Amino acid sequence: MANAESVRVRVFNLNCWGIRYLSKHCGQRYAMIGDMLCKEEHDIVLLQEVWSEKDYLSLKKKLACSHPHSHYFKSGVIGSGLALFSKHRIHDTFLYRYSLNGYPYMAHHGDWFGGKAVGMAVLSIASLTANVYVTHLHAEYCRDKDAYLPHRVVQAWELQQFVRHTSAGADVVILGGDLNMHPQDLGNRLLRSYTGLRDSYLETDQFDGCEDGITLIADNPFISKKELIPFEKGIRIDYILFKGSPKTDIFCDSMSTTKGSVRDHPFPYSDHEALTSELRLESHTPPGTGRDERSKDQDTATGKLAELVDIVTEARTEVKVGLHCAESMRYTAARTGVMGLALLFLELAIAAVPWLALGADQPFPRTSFYLLAGLCFAILLTTSLLYVFYTMELKSLQGAEDQMRLAVGSLQESLRGFPLAQAHSTQRKPPDGLGALDPEE
Amino acid sequence: MANAESVRVRVFNLNCWGIRYLSKHCGQRYAMIGDMLCKEEHDIVLLQEVWSEKDYLSLKKKLACSHPHSHYFKSGVIGSGLALFSKHRIHDTFLYRYSLNGYPYMAHHGDWFGGKAVGMAVLSIASLTANVYVTHLHAEYCRDKDAYLPHRVVQAWELQQFVRHTSAGADVVILGGDLNMHPQDLGNRLLRSYTGLRDSYLETDQFDGCEDGITLIADNPFISKKELIPFEKGIRIDYILFKGSPKTDIFCDSMSTTKGSVRDHPFPYSDHEALTSELRLESHTPPGTGRDERSKDQDTATGKLAELVDIVTEARTEVKVGLHCAESMRYTAARTGVMGLALLFLELAIAAVPWLALGADQPFPRTSFYLLAGLCFAILLTTSLLYVFYTMELKSLQGAEDQMRLAVGSLQESLRGFPLAQAHSTQRKPPDGLGALDPEE
Repeated sequence: MANAESVRVRVFNLNCWGIRYLSKHCGQRYAMIGDMLCKEEHDIVLLQEVWSEKDYLSLKKKLACSHPHSHYFKSGVIGSGLALFSKHRIHDTFLYRYSLNGYPYMAHHGDWFGGKAVGMAVLSIASLTANVYVTHLHAEYCRDKDAYLPHRVVQAWELQQFVRHTSAGADVVILGGDLNMHPQDLGNRLLRSYTGLRDSYLETDQFDGCEDGITLIADNPFISKKELIPFEKGIRIDYILFKGSPKTDIFCDSMSTTKGSVRDHPFPYSDHEALTSELRLESHTPPGTGRDERSKDQDTATGKLAELVDIVTEARTEVKVGLHCAESMRYTAARTGVMGLALLFLELAIAAVPWLALGADQPFPRTSFYLLAGLCFAILLTTSLLYVFYTMELKSLQGAEDQMRLAVGSLQESLRGFPLAQAHSTQRKPPDGLGALDPEE
Repeated sequence: MANAESVRVRVFNLNCWGIRYLSKHCGQRYAMIGDMLCKEEHDIVLLQEVWSEKDYLSLKKKLACSHPHSHYFKSGVIGSGLALFSKHRIHDTFLYRYSLNGYPYMAHHGDWFGGKAVGMAVLSIASLTANVYVTHLHAEYCRDKDAYLPHRVVQAWELQQFVRHTSAGADVVILGGDLNMHPQDLGNRLLRSYTGLRDSYLETDQFDGCEDGITLIADNPFISKKELIPFEKGIRIDYILFKGSPKTDIFCDSMSTTKGSVRDHPFPYSDHEALTSELRLESHTPPGTGRDERSKDQDTATGKLAELVDIVTEARTEVKVGLHCAESMRYTAARTGVMGLALLFLELAIAAVPWLALGADQPFPRTSFYLLAGLCFAILLTTSLLYVFYTMELKSLQGAEDQMRLAVGSLQESLRGFPLAQAHSTQRKPPDGLGALDPEE
C-alpha cells in the first residue's frame, strides 16, 4: 500500500439514510453496506445519517477486522448521525456543533433534532498526520424558497472556520460528507475558497460514476423524482474534499460513485450514492521558492483573495437576509405573546366584574372561561419559548455576520498590503539563536 | 515596545460583573474600567460578563484610540459576555459554544442563558502570530454539592480540545478568563496538562497582588463573605495562561492583581479582581536537539503523559457521575410524563362514563375538570421538554466520555510505544525532493 515515496489512501463516503422503522429496508441495507465495506477495505470510511447507535455498533462489530478503529459522534437529541471507520489509528477526535440548525417545531424536517455537526479525527497514515472531517449540513427542502439557506450558509461558514483553524498541524486534510449544497452554491464556494480544499470529482484523473458526478439520482428507487425537479437526472450534494500541506502533496488518482443499484441486490445501499476516492499522498521538503515563482504565486493569490472577499460578502448578505427574517419572526412571537396576555386580562376582568359583560343575561360560562384561559396560557408559553429560541438564532446570525465583517476587512487589508506583506514576510524569518526550545512544548 | 530580539506583551483580564440594572454601580464601574484601560494601554484586554452589547460598544468608543481592534462574541440568549480589545490587528475570530452549560430552568443561576463559550482571535504581534482565547466557565454555586461539576469538567475538556486543535499554527498562545475553578481543580489540571499552558501566577518572576494570587477576595465590597466559606480570604478562579511554540519562547516577567479597591474611587472595578501579566516573547530557530537532551526530554514527557492519563481518567469518572445523574433525571421526567398522561385518561374516562364516578351524586364538576385537564397538559408539556433537554445532555456527556476513552487509549499507546516512537520519529523525517509545493497551499 505504501512505499518510500507515496502513500495511497482510499476514502469512502455515504449518507446511509438510516432512520430505523422509517427508512425502507434499513436493516438489509446496513447488512449490504457492512458486507461491502468489509470486502472493499477502504482506508477511511465516512458515514452520515447513522441515526441509531445500535446500527453503528453492529457495523463496528462487522468491521472489527477490516477497520479496527472507529468513532461515533454524539450530538443533539437523536445524535449527529456521523460515524467514521478507519484502518489507521485514530489518535484524537473533536466535534463542533453548528450554532444554527433549523427549528425544533419543524419536527417533520427533523434536522434540529439531529444536532448537525462536523466531526474531526486525527489519524496517523504511514508517517503522516491526517485530519479527517465528516459532516452533514441542513437539508434543502425547497430550492426556490429555501427558508434554511441562512442557516446552511452559517454552517458552511463555521465548517470552513473549523477546518481552517484545526488543520494547521496536519500534513493532509480530508473532508467527506453530505453538504446538501450543489457544487456552485454559495456555501460550497465559501468552504473551498477559504480552506483551499479541492473536490475529488473535479480533480480526479479517472472517473467512473453517474453523469456530472451526481449523488442524488432520479434512477434511485428510494428517491421521489418530484423532489428533484427541475434537476431531471439528479444533483451532486455529497463530496470528498482534500488538501495537502507545504510538506505533503495530495492527488486524486481515481474516483467512483455507485449508480443507483448494487449487483446481486434488489435495491441500492441508500437514497444517496456512495463515493470512493483514491488519493495519493507524496511527502517532500518544501522547496525554496525562486523569485519568479513567488511573484507568479502572488498574482494567483491576489486573484483568489479578491474572489474570496466577494464570496464572504455574498455570504454576509445572505446572513443579513436571515437576520431580517429572524427579527420579524421574533417580533411576531412577541406580538402574539402580548395579545395572549391582553386576552387573559380581558377574560379575568369580564369574569371578575360582571357589568363588563355588556348586559349579557348570564355570567361568563364556565366551560368557555376555562377553555379560553387554557388557550391564553398555551399562547403565552409557546410564544415565550419561541422568543427565547429566536433570540438565540439572532445571536448566532449576528455573531457570524460580525465574524464575516471582520474577515472581509482583514482580507481586504491583505489585498491592499500585498507588496507590503512581501516586504514584511522577509522580516518574518525569525532571528537565529534567541533562547532555547520551550520546555513545555 | 519591541526590539529585534524580544517582544513585550501586556495582557489584562477582568470579569466585569456587568449585569445591567442588577450589578451594583454597573455604569460607574464601566466608566472606571474604560478610563483605566485607556490610560494603561495594555496590548490585549480580555473581558468576561460584558452582558450588554451597549456596554461593549461604549467601551469600544472610549478605547478607539488606545485599542483600535476589538471583538464581541455573541452566543446563547443573552450573549457569551466575552469581549476582546487589542492594540494589534485581529485577523480572524472563531467561537466555540460549550455543549453543556447548566439548565434553562435554573433561571436564577442564569448560566444557561449566557451561552458560555470560548472565543478565539488570531492576532499579529510584531512578526508573530498569536492565538488569543477568552473564556468563562459555568459558575460553582456550592462547592460541597456541586451539581454543575460534570458540566464544568466537560467544558474544560472542550476548552483544552479547542485550544490544542486550533493553536498548531500559532507562535504564541494566550488564554484569559474566569475559569470558575481553583488552581488544583480537575478541569484546571486537565486544561494545563493537555495543552501545556502555563499559569502566569505560578510562572511570574515578580508578583504584586493578593495573597496566593486570589481573584475573588473577601475584602471586595461586592462579595458576600458567606459565599466564600470555607475559604476565608478568598479563592483564585481567574487566570492568564500562556504557552509558546517551537519557534517562540514566552516568559512572564511580572504579574499583578487589583486588591479589592481602586485609588480615588469608592468601589472596585468588579466583584472579581483584575489581572495583568507582562509577557516577553522571544523568537528563535528550533535548535537541533542533541541525543542526551532528547532522552532527558523523553523522561519528562513520559512522566507528563502518565500524569495526563490519570487526569483524563479522573475526568471520565466525573463525566460518568454526570451521566448517571442525567439518566435518572430523564427517567424521572419520563415517569412524571406517563403519570400525567394516565391522569388525563382517567379524568376523560370519568367524565365520559358516569358510572366510573363511583356512585357520586353529581357529575364531574366542570371547574375541577378543566383545572385538572390544564394541569395534565402542563405536566405533559413540561416533561416532554425536559425529556428532550436531558436527552441532549446525555448525548453531550456520552460524546465527551467517548472522546476521553479514545484519548486515554491513544495516550497509553504513546506511553507503551515510547522507545518505538523514537525509532519511528527518525523515519518521520520526510524524504527529500518528492514533488513540488502544493499550489493550493
